[in-house]
Amino acid sequence: MSRTIAVLGGTGPAGTGLALRWVRAGETVIIGSRDAVRAQSTADAIRQQVGAQAKVSGMENAAACAASDLLVLTVPFEGQAALLKQLKPALRPGSVLIDVTVPLAASVGGRASRTIGVWQGSAAQQTAELVPKGVSVVAAFQNVSADVLNGDDDVDCDVIVCSDDPRATQVAMELAVKIPRVRAIDGGKLENARIVEQITALLIGLNIRHKGHGGMRITGLPEAAYKSFAK
Amino acid sequence: MSRTIAVLGGTGPAGTGLALRWVRAGETVIIGSRDAVRAQSTADAIRQQVGAQAKVSGMENAAACAASDLLVLTVPFEGQAALLKQLKPALRPGSVLIDVTVPLAASVGGRASRTIGVWQGSAAQQTAELVPKGVSVVAAFQNVSADVLNGDDDVDCDVIVCSDDPRATQVAMELAVKIPRVRAIDGGKLENARIVEQITALLIGLNIRHKGHGGMRITGLPEAAYKSFAK
Repeated sequence: MSRTIAVLGGTGPAGTGLALRWVRAGETVIIGSRDAVRAQSTADAIRQQVGAQAKVSGMENAAACAASDLLVLTVPFEGQAALLKQLKPALRPGSVLIDVTVPLAASVGGRASRTIGVWQGSAAQQTAELVPKGVSVVAAFQNVSADVLNGDDDVDCDVIVCSDDPRATQVAMELAVKIPRVRAIDGGKLENARIVEQITALLIGLNIRHKGHGGMRITGLPEAAYKSFAK
Repeated sequence: MSRTIAVLGGTGPAGTGLALRWVRAGETVIIGSRDAVRAQSTADAIRQQVGAQAKVSGMENAAACAASDLLVLTVPFEGQAALLKQLKPALRPGSVLIDVTVPLAASVGGRASRTIGVWQGSAAQQTAELVPKGVSVVAAFQNVSADVLNGDDDVDCDVIVCSDDPRATQVAMELAVKIPRVRAIDGGKLENARIVEQITALLIGLNIRHKGHGGMRITGLPEAAYKSFAK
């Protein structure tokens, strides 16, 4: 894969962590942000961690969109719909948009260990409703700890990928397995994202209760169901 | 622990599988069913698998309730509320009721890979509303594959235990770790069962898609968060 990955909202912990892992894997990443200066400063920080060969830059979200057809949305839920409406003219048919958003109750002043109901069923389905026709939405990476992503350790977590477009599922699975030890699992239709999103709130609750950085592994599926780095 | 465990709805796959594992671990188990004859026949089948030393019997649900203050509810969601209303006079204060129920859409003719909304938030919270005061409800075991439980292999799955009564959480965790390789994790309040219940539908969807017997492990928590057989 030699596509440029644009991480929208990439200055937040989840976006920065994913960007860091992909840059380390040799991918070309654009950090997108409302503020181009902040985006560039995050890109600089990643380059410092990875080294001079790092292919990472920073720009305003709309410019990042214009420069890539592989978008990763990592804004907090309360900013998701507004950003998508704003970016609509910049989203091109044929693009793949990987949605990492989780509708945590923290978005409306509640707890991060609870979720709020989304009319469409999930944050990812809300996204699917807001993007122009021809943009494929795929939900993934919601359960991976941002703290772990921003560190140096391998990531002990499976990524369940949900989309109605098998091509988009494939793209997200390929990006997932660029993160050491992550396994990608095809989770079926985009609607299944509603459960995967909930799991994030459960993991946050476990993290608070037990003081950890929880992740999740699916057991009991045949080998072929798990795509991993080695394969 | 030397308490008698009454598995209500214990002739179904989940109930039979849990009963089998606990009988194997030396626990005393009563299989409860609407039909005492079916309950006894399930108990006989378990005794045949485990051996003559097996402490297992079968009786009608209400009689099973009367004989135990440690109840495990394993009926399908569509039978849950009616059974609890019927059993109410038999449920004694001080009892612990472990609820394994998941509100699968299959309960209303839909898919087992989807759930239906429960007004109280989860099947377990519906149970909490229906039991007499003084009965402690704890949600657990929803994600353990019935197929795996009914076999001979170790169970590669964590059990997340949710309750508003720490004593009930403790009891359910002790029962969980009697199943070889199961780890029990305190999942906090009963309301968190709403996420754990959803995970079952996700696992069923993965089982259908990938032809497996999916389970779930939580990673990234400190050792002390996991209660297991050895400890």
